[in-house]
Amino acid sequence: MNISVTGIGITKFGELWGVSPRSMAHEACEAALVDAGLDPSDIDCLIIANMLSGMLGAQEHLGAFFSEELDFFHIPSYKVEGACASGGLAVHTAINSLLGGEYTRVMVLGIEKMTDHKPELVSSALMGAGTNEERLSGLTFPGAYAILAKAHMERYKTTEEQLASVAVKNHYHASLNPKAQFHSLLTVEKVMHSACVADPLRLLDCSPISDGAAAVILQNTENGKRKTEVQIIASQVATDTLGVAQRKSLTTLKATEVAAQKAYRQAHILPKDIQVAEVHDCFTIAEILAMEDLGFFEKGKAAPALVRGETTLGSKQLVVNTSGGLKGCGHPVGATGVKQIVEITQQLRGSAGKRQVNGARIGLTHNVGGSGGTCVVHILKGI
Amino acid sequence: MNISVTGIGITKFGELWGVSPRSMAHEACEAALVDAGLDPSDIDCLIIANMLSGMLGAQEHLGAFFSEELDFFHIPSYKVEGACASGGLAVHTAINSLLGGEYTRVMVLGIEKMTDHKPELVSSALMGAGTNEERLSGLTFPGAYAILAKAHMERYKTTEEQLASVAVKNHYHASLNPKAQFHSLLTVEKVMHSACVADPLRLLDCSPISDGAAAVILQNTENGKRKTEVQIIASQVATDTLGVAQRKSLTTLKATEVAAQKAYRQAHILPKDIQVAEVHDCFTIAEILAMEDLGFFEKGKAAPALVRGETTLGSKQLVVNTSGGLKGCGHPVGATGVKQIVEITQQLRGSAGKRQVNGARIGLTHNVGGSGGTCVVHILKGI
Repeated sequence: MNISVTGIGITKFGELWGVSPRSMAHEACEAALVDAGLDPSDIDCLIIANMLSGMLGAQEHLGAFFSEELDFFHIPSYKVEGACASGGLAVHTAINSLLGGEYTRVMVLGIEKMTDHKPELVSSALMGAGTNEERLSGLTFPGAYAILAKAHMERYKTTEEQLASVAVKNHYHASLNPKAQFHSLLTVEKVMHSACVADPLRLLDCSPISDGAAAVILQNTENGKRKTEVQIIASQVATDTLGVAQRKSLTTLKATEVAAQKAYRQAHILPKDIQVAEVHDCFTIAEILAMEDLGFFEKGKAAPALVRGETTLGSKQLVVNTSGGLKGCGHPVGATGVKQIVEITQQLRGSAGKRQVNGARIGLTHNVGGSGGTCVVHILKGI
Repeated sequence: MNISVTGIGITKFGELWGVSPRSMAHEACEAALVDAGLDPSDIDCLIIANMLSGMLGAQEHLGAFFSEELDFFHIPSYKVEGACASGGLAVHTAINSLLGGEYTRVMVLGIEKMTDHKPELVSSALMGAGTNEERLSGLTFPGAYAILAKAHMERYKTTEEQLASVAVKNHYHASLNPKAQFHSLLTVEKVMHSACVADPLRLLDCSPISDGAAAVILQNTENGKRKTEVQIIASQVATDTLGVAQRKSLTTLKATEVAAQKAYRQAHILPKDIQVAEVHDCFTIAEILAMEDLGFFEKGKAAPALVRGETTLGSKQLVVNTSGGLKGCGHPVGATGVKQIVEITQQLRGSAGKRQVNGARIGLTHNVGGSGGTCVVHILKGI
């Protein structure tokens, strides 16, 4: 597989009340074109990642919507959706289109506008990623992940302090990322004293409601040219039951395991070969699950390692969520999976500024839909 | 391009009040598996085409939803959306995935459940395919297509009787299709005396609100095997402005022209080489526009030809919408583009029963999103 990340662009993530989806799309996509040194006419397909535009904004048909807005006249364009994994899925779809030879350069735009709506409406719409049984029982995603957290705590003696440490690390990384939603540093005490949302998860264990857009331009470099660019060397998707109640295990996301194993085989690498990873920390427990299910740590060993700083900027082994993750950088649903590619590309280019992981050569992205119903793993290689 | 249509399945289209989306998916997908002689474990990717499940049913994340429901354990699965063109787009995406070599057999499931909701809610949700300006001005899709009809009538002297003839032909074809929503025959007079919805379009000029599902299994046969199956020899997508007000012409859907020209080049054929076509007749005027924009007739010549019966079953040249089209067979939005592939495959296999076009060797499908913001064209070749 020879897929280059030719251009990247991203907006500030956060509560962007004064910014429309159109403006966000322009900012992210134009930044990606400038980064790649390309014009709109060089793009021959536009894939949109978005979850909530229909349910919250009454606007579907985003392919035509954004290809018109961005002056990509008449090119193929459509939306890919898989809840919070929409961004990763759109990148996967773009890669397949390039490998098939149908397109030369594909732009992926991940975008979500969430803060213009009442929070209860947003929470309700987000439960579109779960099952009807979950909705009828009043479950929301903090509740679903609280169930996973409780199971992990019982089986592996994981503590609330360890969960809080995920938030502390990711806010520290976010404080070094100008695009992140939060620049405030946290302490374990502050997280532990924040309001309880769904026991054991507290407010500061949860990723926020966010607006934002991220864009990447991908190119097939099978011909051997442009090997001076970051390459995507694996792209894998796996699914699992939509609801948590149907799973055999509550301490593993099977979709992560399956997608990761296939990705490692495709890239011919092992987990230990990776220096930097963006993982799907929608809640603090999700980062601990990811660290284990991705094979970075044995089950039960991720949380203690994280507390020891082994995944914090400065670690020589593996740094996780340098962008701040969903927790610190923000989680505009459709944008998240694309933002992960943007962040890892910056790391592998050596252009991540204050949050640069020295010597990063191979990076991984991990994007989850719902409570683990979908998982997308990409592996990227530096220049 | 060597993509085989290995299996097809379809439910009855209509007002299926007693049938759930889960049941519809089972029926269509299991029929496709039986048709292909395959087990669920033979499918390595499931792509869902759907527009309204989030807006009407509060359920997104349909990839995980249906892959679990159908016992396709852990395989990649996601949703593709482009309004009423979602089905065609999902087939296009599946083909790209196969050409890229990532997957061997991909199932595409197009599905929509529309009749369980209040009609005004459905009309409102469907306007998610249009622009905000259209929504604010109170435009609905009958209104948008009425504007196109008025322009065509003014420029080419197209008459209401000619529009009505499209409905008469398609209801005749539908009467021969056991899966169609309508089995009632129409007359020009009956159409002309039905209630006016948006002048000049009357109730019987409009496709109905429908439930239904259709599934196809596609396979890459680059290796030369299985050449005994119907092949897809072109798959092209084009976009245009989302709203009608921004178009240069109101008598042509530019997206259809662009996609069709690219498809003919890809397949190395001319419009005259096609014997059977399924085109997007969401309103009677849409079939006339399609006949011209696809190059089957010069501008202004399609309607008189249709009235002369040149596209009706029995014509030696070109038969259009043997399934009954959206008008007669029904239009469950996400299912329509997939149903078109099912119908043309049956025609090219020679298994279309009473609606068989004798000697059909090459067929075309034409799937439109909104008022022409997206168009997908596929060309299929017989055994």
